[in-house]
Amino acid sequence: MKNMRHTALKEHEKTVVYVGDVVIGEGFCVIAGPCSVESEKQTIETAIAVKKAGADMLRGGAFKPRTSPYAFQGLGLKGLKILKKAKEETGLPIVTEVIDPRDVSWVSEYADVLQIGARNMQNFSLLREVGKARRPVLLKRGMNSTIEEWLNCAEYILDGGNRDVILCERGIRTFETYTRNTLDISAVPALKELTHLPVIIDPSHASGKASLVGSLSMASVAAGADGIIVEVHKNPSEAICDREQTLNPDEFSLMMGKIRMLEKFMEGCR
Amino acid sequence: MKNMRHTALKEHEKTVVYVGDVVIGEGFCVIAGPCSVESEKQTIETAIAVKKAGADMLRGGAFKPRTSPYAFQGLGLKGLKILKKAKEETGLPIVTEVIDPRDVSWVSEYADVLQIGARNMQNFSLLREVGKARRPVLLKRGMNSTIEEWLNCAEYILDGGNRDVILCERGIRTFETYTRNTLDISAVPALKELTHLPVIIDPSHASGKASLVGSLSMASVAAGADGIIVEVHKNPSEAICDREQTLNPDEFSLMMGKIRMLEKFMEGCR
Amino acid sequence: MKNMRHTALKEHEKTVVYVGDVVIGEGFCVIAGPCSVESEKQTIETAIAVKKAGADMLRGGAFKPRTSPYAFQGLGLKGLKILKKAKEETGLPIVTEVIDPRDVSWVSEYADVLQIGARNMQNFSLLREVGKARRPVLLKRGMNSTIEEWLNCAEYILDGGNRDVILCERGIRTFETYTRNTLDISAVPALKELTHLPVIIDPSHASGKASLVGSLSMASVAAGADGIIVEVHKNPSEAICDREQTLNPDEFSLMMGKIRMLEKFMEGCR
Amino acid sequence: MKNMRHTALKEHEKTVVYVGDVVIGEGFCVIAGPCSVESEKQTIETAIAVKKAGADMLRGGAFKPRTSPYAFQGLGLKGLKILKKAKEETGLPIVTEVIDPRDVSWVSEYADVLQIGARNMQNFSLLREVGKARRPVLLKRGMNSTIEEWLNCAEYILDGGNRDVILCERGIRTFETYTRNTLDISAVPALKELTHLPVIIDPSHASGKASLVGSLSMASVAAGADGIIVEVHKNPSEAICDREQTLNPDEFSLMMGKIRMLEKFMEGCR
Repeated sequence: MKNMRHTALKEHEKTVVYVGDVVIGEGFCVIAGPCSVESEKQTIETAIAVKKAGADMLRGGAFKPRTSPYAFQGLGLKGLKILKKAKEETGLPIVTEVIDPRDVSWVSEYADVLQIGARNMQNFSLLREVGKARRPVLLKRGMNSTIEEWLNCAEYILDGGNRDVILCERGIRTFETYTRNTLDISAVPALKELTHLPVIIDPSHASGKASLVGSLSMASVAAGADGIIVEVHKNPSEAICDREQTLNPDEFSLMMGKIRMLEKFMEGCR
Repeated sequence: MKNMRHTALKEHEKTVVYVGDVVIGEGFCVIAGPCSVESEKQTIETAIAVKKAGADMLRGGAFKPRTSPYAFQGLGLKGLKILKKAKEETGLPIVTEVIDPRDVSWVSEYADVLQIGARNMQNFSLLREVGKARRPVLLKRGMNSTIEEWLNCAEYILDGGNRDVILCERGIRTFETYTRNTLDISAVPALKELTHLPVIIDPSHASGKASLVGSLSMASVAAGADGIIVEVHKNPSEAICDREQTLNPDEFSLMMGKIRMLEKFMEGCR
Repeated sequence: MKNMRHTALKEHEKTVVYVGDVVIGEGFCVIAGPCSVESEKQTIETAIAVKKAGADMLRGGAFKPRTSPYAFQGLGLKGLKILKKAKEETGLPIVTEVIDPRDVSWVSEYADVLQIGARNMQNFSLLREVGKARRPVLLKRGMNSTIEEWLNCAEYILDGGNRDVILCERGIRTFETYTRNTLDISAVPALKELTHLPVIIDPSHASGKASLVGSLSMASVAAGADGIIVEVHKNPSEAICDREQTLNPDEFSLMMGKIRMLEKFMEGCR
Repeated sequence: MKNMRHTALKEHEKTVVYVGDVVIGEGFCVIAGPCSVESEKQTIETAIAVKKAGADMLRGGAFKPRTSPYAFQGLGLKGLKILKKAKEETGLPIVTEVIDPRDVSWVSEYADVLQIGARNMQNFSLLREVGKARRPVLLKRGMNSTIEEWLNCAEYILDGGNRDVILCERGIRTFETYTRNTLDISAVPALKELTHLPVIIDPSHASGKASLVGSLSMASVAAGADGIIVEVHKNPSEAICDREQTLNPDEFSLMMGKIRMLEKFMEGCR
């Protein structure tokens, strides 16, 4: 890491992020929910299911940055209101993406954690804006970004005064096509060497295949990650986006059992 | 190109973009100038030099999206005013980058062409905003983006009502480290098959080495590109950014002689 | 996986490879040892150390395919004889690389498992030759190879009549430079879906950093791999090759303790 | 280029390779022919056609390194005999691939230039063997290889005593899927800075699309390459391999007209 004068690098104590009763940076935090908020029914039913299976927070997109301008772009404010209702029902804090610097302040009224998506990792105007927000930021790695560039983006947020940054590895783009992206699991121990910020894994986007999510989640625990963010939908076959990488509640529940056991094992192992 | 319903794909007639007296999409258009506007003297001297050597437009950054928050971020409005002066001195239209959707309308008062940088290619809020602007847009390819994703980003702009989109290949990220990026020269004939939009090449960012810029520019003409955008500084060793990839006026002038001859040869060749 | 008519794909029962008393494909197999055989003392002392720490097999290169023709190329026959001695001392079966089709038959007299290195993954003459050998083959993935191409190379060996193929993921080449390669951990569950062959991980070459090997090895167990192959040297700072990615006996021993515990945990978890 | 002590780098005079009356390293050399030798009729008819269009040498594979063991592997000795006949008919020297170190001496009796394919670039046993051969070697770049690694492979051959090495850029593997590989055109001026060896381009494998071959060939001339190697078949739709990237004789003839004109223009330009 040449030429960096990171606040991220300078401090020595591990950053722990508090979101209501949830803690990121101690134990293993599980964020789960649908790719996008499609309706009140879908969102609340999914929220109840992931809560029951032991998830710590609810994810769900109201603004969807889509490759094509003609694809579903999210429900916007209506989606945020649905998320708020889901939080009232379940108590789960909300993680949701913000994609425009003009939206940061009012989206913060609905979101407990602001997500910066992979395509916006180097959207510096947006980073500056969330650096001023009073909400923790989940910063996804760009699909073409080095660890050094990623940490510099965290630095944009820290430099703005917001100390609550959570890094999220979500797979990088390589030549391999069997998986949607290539999960860079080494980023977990690498970041543990380089920064005090917590690191979580998104096995759903990394693999693009529901059948691989379980193994990758277990690997994330064992590699020392601080959590995962997983796509779950009460009925994946009806999901508007990311159908193939989304777990149903039963699959998620089964996986959660194993994850919690492994989490305990790893704690004993340290 | 599966699943695209491109306006870019649908139309059959080649798009020609007019910027004052300059035409992009007929003949070979050369845009030259410094990476960033550093001072009035540097900018105007460089502008005069590239004009004399035969450049068609002036490039220069007033807003610099930099990897590190602590690096030079550009002069902002002051830089735009310098560019305006350089235009008054030389008559060269101005190509300059915009990085925030909130800046599009006022930056348009200074810019003749709005540049969207590689890191912002999928900044959809920004694309929507320039789609509403009355200025042509130079859309750089993301360093990790497929041709299909790039055309979809053009579509965001076209869909907003702005028909004047110029595509700019600037190298993609690969494992090779001798060059800064890998120039995807095949993108030129590929895009000629796929779209009616003009395509230019940025050999400076693609290679990261001034010594390679001449050969890559000649290859761009021969491959059928509609132009190039090149970094030139009156004194590259003093440039704040991109020193190693920047030509001095003499090198640029020598290259322009060859390019204009090859341009004529290619016209006869069709 | 289009257009493959794999023996690897066709059969349904999991392949278990037996090497003396060692079993690959049941439980978690650990292969450890120096990158290259440098001397009798270095090799035997390292062999004793890894045996003591619980390794199942000894690795060590007598033929080294090196980027430069002027780099150390291995001790050849002399190295194989040293490996044989190390086996006599410790009882550990020997895994060693073969790089020339003309060497397969006589190297087989010293090797218990023939390793095909990443650079030779598509050396089809060599694959044909080890396909005729009576030794299990550890087939490393090419650093630029898709899973599909890799399975096709396994097929070359299986097609020659040798059923004992062990796949070894050792990192793929990407743009990231913090690690030497990028470990594709998803290849483990992906291959479990696609083939009946056992899959092991090489965390040393994947990361290029000794400090990351422990976490990646734990992740390998949790992801469902059948083993690992790790570089260990009695004194890494004196190693001729791969110094930075090599563990010393103490580090290896500490890691082995955790691995064996996790292995047991995972067995209970199924 | 760190840590290289290249013969390739040391010498200052440009290497010119002579193959009968053909010269590589002065002017622009065109090698054309089918991917593989399929029959006497196909090969000789294609040879006559490419000769008539102005090609300098004939390419054709008798040994085909194929991804799958069940794909057509080439005619072997029979293919070499057909190539010999094609040479007798047309006078064109033969460029053909060798894939096994045991074959080098006898294949040299049929080949005027020995080709090392991309998959074998780091097959060091094979490089050592062609280093001892009395035939020029066309060394293709590995699809995942850096320029530095490639030059080191040339060094293996030079170190063996064979000074006649021709480098061939054939596209590298990236995330882009519109083209089969990504032609690294910058490798041409980069290699001109680094080595005295001639450099040619393979636009057929680089693009995988016949429609792009013409533009890429023109770009190769303009970038300063010493030649191209192109796939031509008298009837591409009947070709066993690489159908989609193969030109028919008419397309090749049309392209050759433009290439020879551009070659002359570029000579005047220096």
